[in-house]
Amino acid sequence: MKIVLGVQYCGKNYNGWQKQTKGKTIQSAIEMALSDFTQEKILTYAAGRTDTGVHATGQVIHFETNINRPSYSWVYGLNSILPDDISITDMKEVKSDFHARFSALKRTYRYIIYNHSVRPVMYNEKVSWYKEDNLDEQTMAKAAKHIIGEKDFSCFRSANCQSRSSVKKIYDLQVKRTKEFIHIDITANAFLYNMVRNIVGSLVLVGAGKKKTNWIKDLIEIKDRCEAGKKFPAHGLYLVHVEYDKIYEIDFKRSFPHYY
Amino acid sequence: MKIVLGVQYCGKNYNGWQKQTKGKTIQSAIEMALSDFTQEKILTYAAGRTDTGVHATGQVIHFETNINRPSYSWVYGLNSILPDDISITDMKEVKSDFHARFSALKRTYRYIIYNHSVRPVMYNEKVSWYKEDNLDEQTMAKAAKHIIGEKDFSCFRSANCQSRSSVKKIYDLQVKRTKEFIHIDITANAFLYNMVRNIVGSLVLVGAGKKKTNWIKDLIEIKDRCEAGKKFPAHGLYLVHVEYDKIYEIDFKRSFPHYY
Repeated sequence: MKIVLGVQYCGKNYNGWQKQTKGKTIQSAIEMALSDFTQEKILTYAAGRTDTGVHATGQVIHFETNINRPSYSWVYGLNSILPDDISITDMKEVKSDFHARFSALKRTYRYIIYNHSVRPVMYNEKVSWYKEDNLDEQTMAKAAKHIIGEKDFSCFRSANCQSRSSVKKIYDLQVKRTKEFIHIDITANAFLYNMVRNIVGSLVLVGAGKKKTNWIKDLIEIKDRCEAGKKFPAHGLYLVHVEYDKIYEIDFKRSFPHYY
Repeated sequence: MKIVLGVQYCGKNYNGWQKQTKGKTIQSAIEMALSDFTQEKILTYAAGRTDTGVHATGQVIHFETNINRPSYSWVYGLNSILPDDISITDMKEVKSDFHARFSALKRTYRYIIYNHSVRPVMYNEKVSWYKEDNLDEQTMAKAAKHIIGEKDFSCFRSANCQSRSSVKKIYDLQVKRTKEFIHIDITANAFLYNMVRNIVGSLVLVGAGKKKTNWIKDLIEIKDRCEAGKKFPAHGLYLVHVEYDKIYEIDFKRSFPHYY
């Protein structure tokens, strides 16, 4: 039987999603809890393999098992085993051809910048603190329009990217401010390595008045990573939603973290 | 010269505001930073002596010094010395008769409850997690009206309270929900020991349908702490604002943490 779970985690204390020979990861914590709960050896697959320090409020994972339990039993049973900074929000049995990663049609990430001269004591490692300039979020939103569409995003691709193609389709890219907090939401079919954090770095150059809005357009055309803004820190980034074909009937809780 | 500072802190790693013989406190961290910055022995006085685990986004403190520096120098100089979970937001020289605690006319606390069956991974120790029932915030708001006014609040007074009188004046008490988050804001001239956390415990009994709204009125009349709801945890509580007479011209940044 194939089971799909909705998962939330604070990435602060983990070396990202992916199992590694060394260090604590989200995947190893969840697989340990699953093996404990099912008494089987369980292998998991995630929609987004988030990096060290990246958070998720809408991660989706799947695995196979022989254990048959009601949905609330999976959710509460696993949460009672998992550490405080990881939780299961939803559970559903799913058709056997479903794959959390390969069946995903769209992924949405949210990036949160705290834009103030004094550091955000309540949001350490949950937002990215930008104190240098007062960012103009409307200019950033204007520049962001140049990123929407199916394009070659080599300029936002970090080294070690394993993606076969640098062409991705960005469906939406919103920049909104609530008081000191700038929330940047990006939806795409898939992302290149560090793509969101690299996009944020370039949008911030525009928001700070160091680059014009059209510069983003040129940047994409030039396809040179060295011309783009610096990569922004992992701890401002959240995987917030993954969309699948309606046939899978995966209608999990959407949770867009919002601070102000 | 008397100086007043606006202070924010995450209370998670501290044994409250007040200096103690043992353990890390906010006051000792700030006095160490001030002594380092001024090369004088500095004693501080705070508007609210917050408990272990309680946060502050609008704490106000004062102290005396012989050092004369511009306001930005105090703010940035101290922030460069202080740990990441404490920050100075504002600085002002103030008349010699000012006292952060005794001159305060009104104090506002915010209490945040996360009301959902699955734990809040991103808000550990920043909100109080209530999973047992779906709370009706409108009933809570109705019950809260009975608390407003100048009354004897013995029913919400914890043991070891050092206040001379149990009569306090509550100016306002608001209960509002944004998605899973219930924000409770209380403004009073002063508070009894644990008063906000005890009030929250009683309002939750009403919100959960275990008590009627009028029960709050009876509770205050009966003056018996044992009849009230249980004390809610410290980590959901924030000191958000302190109001002084206009003559002191203290117009510091107000910051009401809001999650959803």
